[in-house]
Amino acid sequence: MAVTVGELAELLGADAAGDLHAIVSRPAQPDEAREGDLALAMEPRFLDALATSPARVAIVLSGTDWSALGLDAVLFSGRSKYTLAGLSRVFDTQPSLPEGIHPTAVVDDTATLGEGCRIGPYVVIGPQVAIGARARIEAHVSIGARSVVGDDAQIFAGCRIAHDVRIGDRFIGQSNAVIGGDGFSFVSPQPSAAETYMATGSIEQSMKVTEYVRINSLGGVVIGDDVEVGPAATIDKGTVTDTRIGNGTKLDSQAHVGHNVQIGENVLLCGQSGIAGSTKIGDRVILGGQVGVADNISIGADSIALAGSGVTTRVPERTVVMGYPALKQDVFLNIFKAMRRLPRMAQKLTEMQKQVPNDRDTG
Amino acid sequence: MAVTVGELAELLGADAAGDLHAIVSRPAQPDEAREGDLALAMEPRFLDALATSPARVAIVLSGTDWSALGLDAVLFSGRSKYTLAGLSRVFDTQPSLPEGIHPTAVVDDTATLGEGCRIGPYVVIGPQVAIGARARIEAHVSIGARSVVGDDAQIFAGCRIAHDVRIGDRFIGQSNAVIGGDGFSFVSPQPSAAETYMATGSIEQSMKVTEYVRINSLGGVVIGDDVEVGPAATIDKGTVTDTRIGNGTKLDSQAHVGHNVQIGENVLLCGQSGIAGSTKIGDRVILGGQVGVADNISIGADSIALAGSGVTTRVPERTVVMGYPALKQDVFLNIFKAMRRLPRMAQKLTEMQKQVPNDRDTG
Amino acid sequence: MAVTVGELAELLGADAAGDLHAIVSRPAQPDEAREGDLALAMEPRFLDALATSPARVAIVLSGTDWSALGLDAVLFSGRSKYTLAGLSRVFDTQPSLPEGIHPTAVVDDTATLGEGCRIGPYVVIGPQVAIGARARIEAHVSIGARSVVGDDAQIFAGCRIAHDVRIGDRFIGQSNAVIGGDGFSFVSPQPSAAETYMATGSIEQSMKVTEYVRINSLGGVVIGDDVEVGPAATIDKGTVTDTRIGNGTKLDSQAHVGHNVQIGENVLLCGQSGIAGSTKIGDRVILGGQVGVADNISIGADSIALAGSGVTTRVPERTVVMGYPALKQDVFLNIFKAMRRLPRMAQKLTEMQKQVPNDRDTG
Repeated sequence: MAVTVGELAELLGADAAGDLHAIVSRPAQPDEAREGDLALAMEPRFLDALATSPARVAIVLSGTDWSALGLDAVLFSGRSKYTLAGLSRVFDTQPSLPEGIHPTAVVDDTATLGEGCRIGPYVVIGPQVAIGARARIEAHVSIGARSVVGDDAQIFAGCRIAHDVRIGDRFIGQSNAVIGGDGFSFVSPQPSAAETYMATGSIEQSMKVTEYVRINSLGGVVIGDDVEVGPAATIDKGTVTDTRIGNGTKLDSQAHVGHNVQIGENVLLCGQSGIAGSTKIGDRVILGGQVGVADNISIGADSIALAGSGVTTRVPERTVVMGYPALKQDVFLNIFKAMRRLPRMAQKLTEMQKQVPNDRDTG
Repeated sequence: MAVTVGELAELLGADAAGDLHAIVSRPAQPDEAREGDLALAMEPRFLDALATSPARVAIVLSGTDWSALGLDAVLFSGRSKYTLAGLSRVFDTQPSLPEGIHPTAVVDDTATLGEGCRIGPYVVIGPQVAIGARARIEAHVSIGARSVVGDDAQIFAGCRIAHDVRIGDRFIGQSNAVIGGDGFSFVSPQPSAAETYMATGSIEQSMKVTEYVRINSLGGVVIGDDVEVGPAATIDKGTVTDTRIGNGTKLDSQAHVGHNVQIGENVLLCGQSGIAGSTKIGDRVILGGQVGVADNISIGADSIALAGSGVTTRVPERTVVMGYPALKQDVFLNIFKAMRRLPRMAQKLTEMQKQVPNDRDTG
Repeated sequence: MAVTVGELAELLGADAAGDLHAIVSRPAQPDEAREGDLALAMEPRFLDALATSPARVAIVLSGTDWSALGLDAVLFSGRSKYTLAGLSRVFDTQPSLPEGIHPTAVVDDTATLGEGCRIGPYVVIGPQVAIGARARIEAHVSIGARSVVGDDAQIFAGCRIAHDVRIGDRFIGQSNAVIGGDGFSFVSPQPSAAETYMATGSIEQSMKVTEYVRINSLGGVVIGDDVEVGPAATIDKGTVTDTRIGNGTKLDSQAHVGHNVQIGENVLLCGQSGIAGSTKIGDRVILGGQVGVADNISIGADSIALAGSGVTTRVPERTVVMGYPALKQDVFLNIFKAMRRLPRMAQKLTEMQKQVPNDRDTG
């Protein structure tokens, strides 16, 4: 991919200066850039590296004085990550799948594929499946009976979509993600240790589960438009109603969404975060990496659970929580600061006790 | 699936009243139920929704007065989740695999398949594998040499069963689960940082592992009857002996069982929980979501580790633990309550110190 | 596999005594050993079990007096886990793939395979891929365009290697691992709740992300020699530069490495640990099970994060940390000890307050 500075400025909607006919072939960090690369120096700390970089063209923050940087041309970025998103589209390196349906793909006669679909080797598409236009489906993907996927889907190798899953447009399913596994829902003829304990506060020796009976998942999974599901992430079917994920929501690698969970729009679930059954997550919520959310609770819109938190109770809107069990961030940080002084506090207290006349034996 | 109220009562072993010839086609939440559905109102909070539901038949808790609910018929449930399990069997929506072995399946000549097996496209079954009767094996499943799977197995797309895995009857393996990966076991010719630290309490600059040597897994995995392994869950092989999972045990999505681990019967491992190598888990133990259990310890029968706990030491029988490192629940909660008051305690202490004459400088 | 004691001593570089022509067929724990097995009694606690074991040959720690153990022959081990590694190579049970390329494998015309590669059924290898000599690649593996894998690779069923991944020699990729998924990197045209909160300390009701724009991954993944990636582990591509993993580093099951992460040599990432984007991990670092490491920080060489830790700030070299947020281990343990006494401290403090005359109302 080779593009002139002028063309790139137009593609990005960015300003440019210098030789607009200079050609760049890929973006690179200033310390890794070669001649012909576009050096990314949108953070001031990268400007120094430009001096020694063989790159002749760079992209810098708007307002940067580039006259002393020894470059042939510059592009100007207002919001660096946003510009990076634009650059990553222009220079995308993703190889294209061959057109059409690979002869080894097993597509059921009752399935329908939209115009311009590209289907890779050994893909298996079940009965009554409907795939929208221009889908790119890589090797070894399987899609179960009656599932629906909208237009412009991109589904990577080994991604699993079970039966009765309904997905909107522009879906991205990463490799080995599993959408529509059965919910984890079992019941014992007699109350289990957990049930007994919650009801009575103790676990009786006599109460023993002798078997679990499975509650099959009758519900499906419903996913909105512009959703991405990361590598090896898992989304379970609902028990009676559907598990739902709203428009624009993104799941990172190994995120997990339990049965019946209802997730709003533009939610971010970072890596290895997990949501237990029947919980509701509001719009624009962010769960940091490895966050766990208990079952049957809710997190209000615009709230954030910082990485590593274990959320066990309802979180209101626009609230930042952390810790386990998770507390509001300022409350947690106050406690954490006090904890760090705790060993010294304990010592102080012991010393004071010696000095205060005490009429009771506190043993 | 359409069934009369009378037939359904018989299938569930439940009582019914009203028009036993009324027909229902699927269960649904009262707020989502359409005419012809069976409204699920086994929790009192759902009774109100029945009034406005177009459903003419509902299932309610035994003893509920249904006369004012405006229904044609009701079924009565004693234990709601148990009834739900029964309903989920009657109305199961799972599509059936076509009979027989798909022509693209690669089944080794030395493998044996029981009567009535259904094998999907691109399944690969290795040498000397033995599969019991009526197995349903979906697309892209692989089963390695010498592995054994009992009767009535259901194995979903992309599930991996390595070589030398022995599994009992009625096994359910969800999509992309991996059973029989190699154990994570390495040794360095010289002691590693971890070994040095545990022996001496410090990490010497001079001690540097220059390579790790792999301990191959000679053991297999042995799994009892009625076990379910969730989507993307992983169970490693044993080093010398086998990793073992007892009858009736269920693993949720992304649960992990390390090498040599011995798990009892009717254990529940919730989502993203993990057990490190050589640990023993007693019968009927429950690990909540994201629980971690250290290596080489044990958890006694009927114990519960609540979600998010990190269990680092032996847990006796019938004990509920939480926290990291995990403590008995009541101990943890007492500490947690005190922690919440800690910033105020620290302030009090400082104030008291000012008032108590102090003959030492506590700096 | 049958081998004489004398041959085994030579293969292991170990000393032996007794009947060097005695034959053993597999290693086994003394309590599970049958006649003809090599009983593993390298830990003193296993010596007792030898008395009742039908095994006639054992391996014991150097210096053990074996005269009273009733054996025909013994081997002597200096470092037991190291010996176990040797034994596990000699007695490896792994079935061999058939020679050559399975007729169902789809190998692009422009891909190159080294001498002696064994490729299983339904493997898909993309354009311009280069695989070294003697690779063993199992069923359903996919390798994307332009990726490179060195000599002697072993890649298990369902492992996913995306496009533009470069891997060294002696690579082991376990089942359903995903190498080269896209990084989790999104930007909103307007600042998100997280950005607003970090900048201002509160989340304004008016600031609402209306969509996320994706930053595509232009970087690849670069992996050194002798690296192993566990079952269902995930390694994401870099954004502009490559995600890098050094020689000799091992990832356990379900470990996760985010985009742009730079990992040194001989690092161990235990089960379900995760590293967020752009973080640097020094040589010989060990992350215990379920450890999480925040984005954009670093962990110095030879440091250890104990299982369950959440590392949120930079860790220097040769440092052991634990807890969440992670602290140096001794600091954490001091605090934890004090926490366990906290409920009693609170009580003491209340009692003392009653005894100290107080001129202020502390309410």
